[in-house]
Amino acid sequence: MKILQILFFLWIPTLCLGQTSELRVNSERLNGSLKKLSTFGKNANGGTDRIAFSEYDIQARSYVMGLMNDAGLEVSVDFAGNIIGKRKGTNPALKPIAFGSHIDEVPNGGDYDGPVGSMSAIEIMQTLADERIETRHPLEIIIFTNEEGGVIGSRALVGELGKEALQVVTNAGITQYEGIKKIGGDPDRIPELKRDPLSLAAFLELHIEQGGNLDREKVKIGVVEGIVAINWWTFTFHGFANHAGTTPMNMRKDPMLPAAEFILAVNEVAKSTEGKQVATVGKIEASPGAGNVIPGEVTLNLEIRDLSPEKISSMYAELEKRAKASAEKYDTTVSIQPIDVASKPAIADDIIRNIIDEQAKALGLSTMSLPSGAGHDAQEMARIAPMGMIFIPSKDGISHAPSEYSSPEDIANGANVLLQTILTLDQKLGS
Amino acid sequence: MKILQILFFLWIPTLCLGQTSELRVNSERLNGSLKKLSTFGKNANGGTDRIAFSEYDIQARSYVMGLMNDAGLEVSVDFAGNIIGKRKGTNPALKPIAFGSHIDEVPNGGDYDGPVGSMSAIEIMQTLADERIETRHPLEIIIFTNEEGGVIGSRALVGELGKEALQVVTNAGITQYEGIKKIGGDPDRIPELKRDPLSLAAFLELHIEQGGNLDREKVKIGVVEGIVAINWWTFTFHGFANHAGTTPMNMRKDPMLPAAEFILAVNEVAKSTEGKQVATVGKIEASPGAGNVIPGEVTLNLEIRDLSPEKISSMYAELEKRAKASAEKYDTTVSIQPIDVASKPAIADDIIRNIIDEQAKALGLSTMSLPSGAGHDAQEMARIAPMGMIFIPSKDGISHAPSEYSSPEDIANGANVLLQTILTLDQKLGS
Repeated sequence: MKILQILFFLWIPTLCLGQTSELRVNSERLNGSLKKLSTFGKNANGGTDRIAFSEYDIQARSYVMGLMNDAGLEVSVDFAGNIIGKRKGTNPALKPIAFGSHIDEVPNGGDYDGPVGSMSAIEIMQTLADERIETRHPLEIIIFTNEEGGVIGSRALVGELGKEALQVVTNAGITQYEGIKKIGGDPDRIPELKRDPLSLAAFLELHIEQGGNLDREKVKIGVVEGIVAINWWTFTFHGFANHAGTTPMNMRKDPMLPAAEFILAVNEVAKSTEGKQVATVGKIEASPGAGNVIPGEVTLNLEIRDLSPEKISSMYAELEKRAKASAEKYDTTVSIQPIDVASKPAIADDIIRNIIDEQAKALGLSTMSLPSGAGHDAQEMARIAPMGMIFIPSKDGISHAPSEYSSPEDIANGANVLLQTILTLDQKLGS
Repeated sequence: MKILQILFFLWIPTLCLGQTSELRVNSERLNGSLKKLSTFGKNANGGTDRIAFSEYDIQARSYVMGLMNDAGLEVSVDFAGNIIGKRKGTNPALKPIAFGSHIDEVPNGGDYDGPVGSMSAIEIMQTLADERIETRHPLEIIIFTNEEGGVIGSRALVGELGKEALQVVTNAGITQYEGIKKIGGDPDRIPELKRDPLSLAAFLELHIEQGGNLDREKVKIGVVEGIVAINWWTFTFHGFANHAGTTPMNMRKDPMLPAAEFILAVNEVAKSTEGKQVATVGKIEASPGAGNVIPGEVTLNLEIRDLSPEKISSMYAELEKRAKASAEKYDTTVSIQPIDVASKPAIADDIIRNIIDEQAKALGLSTMSLPSGAGHDAQEMARIAPMGMIFIPSKDGISHAPSEYSSPEDIANGANVLLQTILTLDQKLGS
């Protein structure tokens, strides 16, 4: 009996792996459910107004929960309003492999940003159900609450959503607290929701690439290296406000000039080293800001993103030096204020990255390793689980806009890579 | 009898000229009346809140009219609220020589900007009265209404103040129309006020220099070459707004970069040729203007000032070329919109300039020729009369601020140059 049991356990995985590597999602069904999802909140511009906590969001959540029920999942809404869909594994001792994304959108957003990962997750569960395939690990879909409004659902799960954050008014015109209540959560009990580190075997998210790298390079699958750290600073150049008509050119202390040199320096420094680091000045203000007054102050915002905090530090150090040199050159001064929005990088798990890459190639899909410059729920989930992200091409790198587009084929490819990654992890982990 | 008359007319001027070149204003009295004037509207910061049409303005006007009466002038308030003080000449056929300035101030302004020219004008009339000196030409002081709020009084006198301008709300919180009524004018009758070209023999204004040229060069008297033309343009650099995290550096169309190059070009072009031209970018805006978004548009304001419209044109042409080159370099475009605040230059009369220069030197004062980068009532008056302006040093070139300062000695010097210029013109003109 014991020998039989051992033989059985050796045999079953081999059999499953052999079968499941040929498993594919139903592309037509997946793209059909994506299309149906896009009708909730579609506006006259072709955009989607499915902001979190809106009536459209609630209708879409209901649709999604119906699909999850159809796939045989045990569906619930947690205290933070996250939709959870669970499927049992054959080994109750193993921790769940979780995957998912979000279905809320920015105002006048597109149809692919979070939905691709969400509907692919459900399609995978439906495919497994159709083929009656069992996994060793429990599987769990998480459709996160209000990703666009501050990765609310994933922050709740990792214990990083404080009471103050719940009082923030959302795009729906109500607070996060009220919104979570509206969709069936219980915001007062969110602290109970916190999951322990390593309470999941893995967390995976499929998403469109919001840069244009895959689309431009005609690469099918992006293997995400991690989600970049973001640092912000305010640079204020101080000069002397004066009459623009009467102050000779050589007597000016015009802070606009070092600010202009600094903007060019930011671009040069970001481009001067190998790597995918980005640096941006998106905001600038001259004070008093009149056409006939030499400004007294010019304030601008510097953002640097990279996977490596060390690279961010060294770029900042170079830019600080150049800002001071420019300020001095024009007889002005500069003061620098770090802004408290700095986020740490979330590095993807090496094993998961390799599996994603292998499985994509096994499916005949070209791959590229790249960082995610945008934040995702996966960034938060990386605090409690080995994390991996899969990107598919988005036309011209456009996202958060009605013109956002990924082809049905690319979407099915992404879902298949996610499916195969889950199945491979199911075999390799916890054994 | 006829011969006697002729001899009389030949003799009188010679005698007067001989006597009057030794004539000096009473510096103590002049600086005392300036000090007294500064008490109307003095605030806790040491600044002066004597904005046009305020109660302080009305009190100061009353004080000034009192002094003009004391100096034996025929005092009136015209339809635009200008205070007019007339003194008869010996030759009723000659047109008046007019001079004056304004006593209104910007909010939290200083004590010298318009007051120096206004109180010096009155002091000159008092000096002439004290010494019982008659002039051939009638003399006329004009204390202009609301200079700081749009050279209102002088525009009324030259027929350039339309009905729309009267509906503009002033710093006093009432319209120009209401303000003019409040100080005893009759705004509906302003069209009747228009003076014909050459209805004055000359118009002269003494003023502090609002740049720092005289103060820095330790020169006592500025002989104003004219009041510069001012041209404004809006430059809008168009790129493509995109995610600052996900858009690689080499895929950006960031309009901040050509805007920065343009700001530096403005400074270079203004400094690259001989002359006193100035060019300024005082205002800049990035849209949407968020730290995490590459701007889609950056809009800035270009102002160029110079006495020569040709020089302004050639500077503009160079800057237009450089803006387009920068836009192209960064895969962006630029559109340029002239703004309708362009003013024509007002060139000082050559004869008057020479007299100012000669008289200053005769008084032992160093001189410098320079343009006025700021607008003045004299700029408007130049439309109807040969115009001259005299500048005195202002410490560090500061104006429109509580720290504005000219020394009592410099003020008396300026008043004496104005006095001698008036007396010389009285001899030389209309003969």
